[in-house]
Amino acid sequence: MATKETQLAEIREARAQSSETKRPTIPALEEILYEFLPVLDHGCIRVVDYMGDDAAVVQAARVSYGRGTKKISEDRGLIRYLMRHRHTTPFEMCEIKFHIKMPIFVARQWIRHRTANVNEYSARYSILDKEFYLPKPEHLAAQSTVNRQGRGAVLSPEEAEAVRTLLFEDAERAYRHYEHMLNDDGSGKEQDPDRSMLARELARMNLSLNYYTQWYWKIDLHNLFHFLGLRADTHAQYEIRVYADIIMDIVRKWVPYSCEAFEEYHLNAFTLSNTMKKIVCRIITGEKVTQETSGLSKREWDEFTTGIGMARS
Amino acid sequence: MATKETQLAEIREARAQSSETKRPTIPALEEILYEFLPVLDHGCIRVVDYMGDDAAVVQAARVSYGRGTKKISEDRGLIRYLMRHRHTTPFEMCEIKFHIKMPIFVARQWIRHRTANVNEYSARYSILDKEFYLPKPEHLAAQSTVNRQGRGAVLSPEEAEAVRTLLFEDAERAYRHYEHMLNDDGSGKEQDPDRSMLARELARMNLSLNYYTQWYWKIDLHNLFHFLGLRADTHAQYEIRVYADIIMDIVRKWVPYSCEAFEEYHLNAFTLSNTMKKIVCRIITGEKVTQETSGLSKREWDEFTTGIGMARS
Amino acid sequence: MATKETQLAEIREARAQSSETKRPTIPALEEILYEFLPVLDHGCIRVVDYMGDDAAVVQAARVSYGRGTKKISEDRGLIRYLMRHRHTTPFEMCEIKFHIKMPIFVARQWIRHRTANVNEYSARYSILDKEFYLPKPEHLAAQSTVNRQGRGAVLSPEEAEAVRTLLFEDAERAYRHYEHMLNDDGSGKEQDPDRSMLARELARMNLSLNYYTQWYWKIDLHNLFHFLGLRADTHAQYEIRVYADIIMDIVRKWVPYSCEAFEEYHLNAFTLSNTMKKIVCRIITGEKVTQETSGLSKREWDEFTTGIGMARS
Amino acid sequence: MATKETQLAEIREARAQSSETKRPTIPALEEILYEFLPVLDHGCIRVVDYMGDDAAVVQAARVSYGRGTKKISEDRGLIRYLMRHRHTTPFEMCEIKFHIKMPIFVARQWIRHRTANVNEYSARYSILDKEFYLPKPEHLAAQSTVNRQGRGAVLSPEEAEAVRTLLFEDAERAYRHYEHMLNDDGSGKEQDPDRSMLARELARMNLSLNYYTQWYWKIDLHNLFHFLGLRADTHAQYEIRVYADIIMDIVRKWVPYSCEAFEEYHLNAFTLSNTMKKIVCRIITGEKVTQETSGLSKREWDEFTTGIGMARS
Repeated sequence: MATKETQLAEIREARAQSSETKRPTIPALEEILYEFLPVLDHGCIRVVDYMGDDAAVVQAARVSYGRGTKKISEDRGLIRYLMRHRHTTPFEMCEIKFHIKMPIFVARQWIRHRTANVNEYSARYSILDKEFYLPKPEHLAAQSTVNRQGRGAVLSPEEAEAVRTLLFEDAERAYRHYEHMLNDDGSGKEQDPDRSMLARELARMNLSLNYYTQWYWKIDLHNLFHFLGLRADTHAQYEIRVYADIIMDIVRKWVPYSCEAFEEYHLNAFTLSNTMKKIVCRIITGEKVTQETSGLSKREWDEFTTGIGMARS
Repeated sequence: MATKETQLAEIREARAQSSETKRPTIPALEEILYEFLPVLDHGCIRVVDYMGDDAAVVQAARVSYGRGTKKISEDRGLIRYLMRHRHTTPFEMCEIKFHIKMPIFVARQWIRHRTANVNEYSARYSILDKEFYLPKPEHLAAQSTVNRQGRGAVLSPEEAEAVRTLLFEDAERAYRHYEHMLNDDGSGKEQDPDRSMLARELARMNLSLNYYTQWYWKIDLHNLFHFLGLRADTHAQYEIRVYADIIMDIVRKWVPYSCEAFEEYHLNAFTLSNTMKKIVCRIITGEKVTQETSGLSKREWDEFTTGIGMARS
Repeated sequence: MATKETQLAEIREARAQSSETKRPTIPALEEILYEFLPVLDHGCIRVVDYMGDDAAVVQAARVSYGRGTKKISEDRGLIRYLMRHRHTTPFEMCEIKFHIKMPIFVARQWIRHRTANVNEYSARYSILDKEFYLPKPEHLAAQSTVNRQGRGAVLSPEEAEAVRTLLFEDAERAYRHYEHMLNDDGSGKEQDPDRSMLARELARMNLSLNYYTQWYWKIDLHNLFHFLGLRADTHAQYEIRVYADIIMDIVRKWVPYSCEAFEEYHLNAFTLSNTMKKIVCRIITGEKVTQETSGLSKREWDEFTTGIGMARS
Repeated sequence: MATKETQLAEIREARAQSSETKRPTIPALEEILYEFLPVLDHGCIRVVDYMGDDAAVVQAARVSYGRGTKKISEDRGLIRYLMRHRHTTPFEMCEIKFHIKMPIFVARQWIRHRTANVNEYSARYSILDKEFYLPKPEHLAAQSTVNRQGRGAVLSPEEAEAVRTLLFEDAERAYRHYEHMLNDDGSGKEQDPDRSMLARELARMNLSLNYYTQWYWKIDLHNLFHFLGLRADTHAQYEIRVYADIIMDIVRKWVPYSCEAFEEYHLNAFTLSNTMKKIVCRIITGEKVTQETSGLSKREWDEFTTGIGMARS
């Protein structure tokens, strides 16, 4: 991998280019294009390219010859209508490309979103950098006692430090042995001429899941919203949620109307099941409904009261 | 649908916009952006937006921080290597968006390519224009006698004219009845106040498959190459091949190295089956091989000799 | 196409086969396997094959070595949990394959569901049967005045008959001319030796969109639920909804727990937007909320009251 | 995870079930259904379910009412024709489901095949078993000097043992620390009551990439062939190739004609580029062509001679 200095020079050079275009252009994205937005201790998100804007959603929905936009209020209304009624194809007409660096265990969750294009840095072909994720003490938490796949109370400072020491030492040692097995002097020659250079595709298996990998990731707006709906959710693991949160900020700059509609109708929405619908009706008509009389299990009742905002989650 | 004049005004307006961008920009595509490229008698292809260029393929393959390009000869070599060895993901990093107008029977073949984004003009919501495809006499051919899904000899001028008259009169009548059932005066009111206005989603079923529809179509470069490999092929139906040919010209302007590699390694390549490989080896070592001694059926032998260019197709 | 008698004989023969299998097997589906379930006037749905059952969902969710099922009540609870929390991948572990015959304009809506496998009868290769959809009088309705893509009042018997006559005569004439242009005596030879046989890929363009086509369609349970969520919805066009309704019945036999969960949490659910959530909270805490004080547009207010079942749709 | 004994009992129980079915059934697959086929040191492949057979390919290609098969020789000929001419959709009509256990670095390559259904064992929810991949000495090879992503000479026994010791000790230590951080007594309670139980989603990051994971994986035959074309290839990493080889054997039992056609026209085929086609023609017409006069680079010339079998790879 190139050194940090080389990377910054490459970014500067990419940012220095400028062309005239007839394509929809978003000044707020141009502002941050190619920039290194830091995430966690060594990760990053970089916007590398984008296609379309809010008007491109409208244009496709209308299959129009020009930009297809009318009055701003009409465009906003159409976008909200499309989002509300699951007319998802117009949102597929916008596309964004990121360069992302994240721990391997995050990448393993991320890749489950199949409707995207991915080009990952190859550890068969290249040598991984010595960069691993070490959680901050405040992010080291105990297994949740209520949610089998989540975190509960934060560890005490002493326990957190003990965990961090373990993680740090194991990751350091793993990399030392990785380097030892590779036996590469940095130029593709043996460091120690008396030993072989183990194939990269083999040596990498000694690295732990908190090592960073990176990839180019390109996705359309509809599928990005789907990703954000799952990964910007409070049930997502913290280490992927921080990426989703930064991407939300980027999307807000890129397509503000679409993003607003997504937050209104999806991210901050709550789906009433058939039984819950009936409960709401009963409540509205003046009936007092409790969990016992609701027809819901304790668990679903909690999801209901939390979901509509009556109880705190 | 808007009138031709409105459409042209919209295109002019879209073409008049201009912004500064740091994104990769292709002057040859900017030149034709939004323009109406005519196909068949009423169809068109319009490039509406694009993302990336040849350097974006290289950049993703290298997962680099800047544009990732080195010397032009190295970039070209890498692109050819990627194409040859089926490393397809870097080609997914370029994206293009078209507005396309084509006969419904062409659209029905086109939509079979699933890895693309589509927004079609809705005949449930809107009224279709009176535009249908009427083949030119030289494109009216008899059923092929050698290929069960293809054309053979061109019809005589008299027969062609008879067919054209049938097609023309049936399409005209179908539209007349479509309009009659819709009973729409053009402003959403009844033309004839004594009759109902049949639902659009019903009335459209009377139109024939040569009526034009239109859609926005967005696809990445790898999947576009796959589309072109099938639809720019001589076995594709003429009416979709003319679209594929124009798209090939556009792709050549957009990503010349990638397109050249595609033509070299796919479009104009020929795959030798295991048996054919052995035949080539036998021939090279001086043996005279005929269909009878080849181990191939008559049909495969013909495909072989035609495929490597020994016989004419 | 084979004659009806040949088709029935083929179905009988397929139904007569019987094997021992260790795979999950659903007696209720075996009962109808290969059978011709009629839809509309000439359409059909046939279940041709299936893989998995409710237990297969549970088995995949638990990544277990055996069938993975525990007590029936636990399995049902897990399926409901998975459905409610959008853990969609276990539902992808069931697969079903249909043979479907439907009007072309229905096929055109259907094919928009991209995550499925399709093999359509080729009108380039074969000759289409003379079968077209002629709506019953009670399904001929006027354009809706409130929903731009929907139907309103049913036509009067006289108007309906007039429309049916138009549709019938145009479809009959289109086929007559199709046959004339094909000039095929049924065995691939000219009927009239003095005329050419127009290529099938050309002649078919004269047929109207109410002609029937057919295909094999294979899809996993998650994507089938997505299809049903859109096409069994009251906003779907009647002619595709009747297919969706029959498929719902089939799915109910196949995976009763998954289907029940789908109906509870999706099909009959209603999503409260962020603003609607707040309205429900205000109502529950005793506030009287009207459209004017709700923060919702008239249109969204109607969707809200209809959606939770306070108003009739 | 269940103990080995429990797993075997579950497998026995699953294998004991038997039902009558009208569906296509393959005795050779029933024979191995649910069985544990070992791969590498702790991995496995298990066939969990399947849909369709060779006749199902033919049936879909013909969109027929019955099984659609004619004489065996005709069916085989049609399958070969479909494969040769890239008519891929009929092969999508067969589906197979596996339970697979493999090292995480293998899983990371595997998941890149997006057109499949996957359900992975969750290390957020459950505790991973202490099972890691330790390569046999004969599979520990040096980095290739000719192929930047491959292996060259096998290490000496001494070097191999040194590498194995490093890998073994690091993996052992990583798991010890994983268990320590989890502090789980096996029943979800603290082992050491004085320490917290670190969340599973965090503790797992200490494990190395040679730890085993497992998933259910379901894919259609066309996409499985695509997977096999890449992963049963000599350029694939050994550790994924052994899985692909076993799957090839399974596919051969399942759909022998389709598999034979795949081997003839894809797996063992070689694609001549446009330039290579011309070289073959020149050779056939008697010209002596060398790399220098071929128009190919040294690298492509080697690929050419190796590809058609003139040189050894």
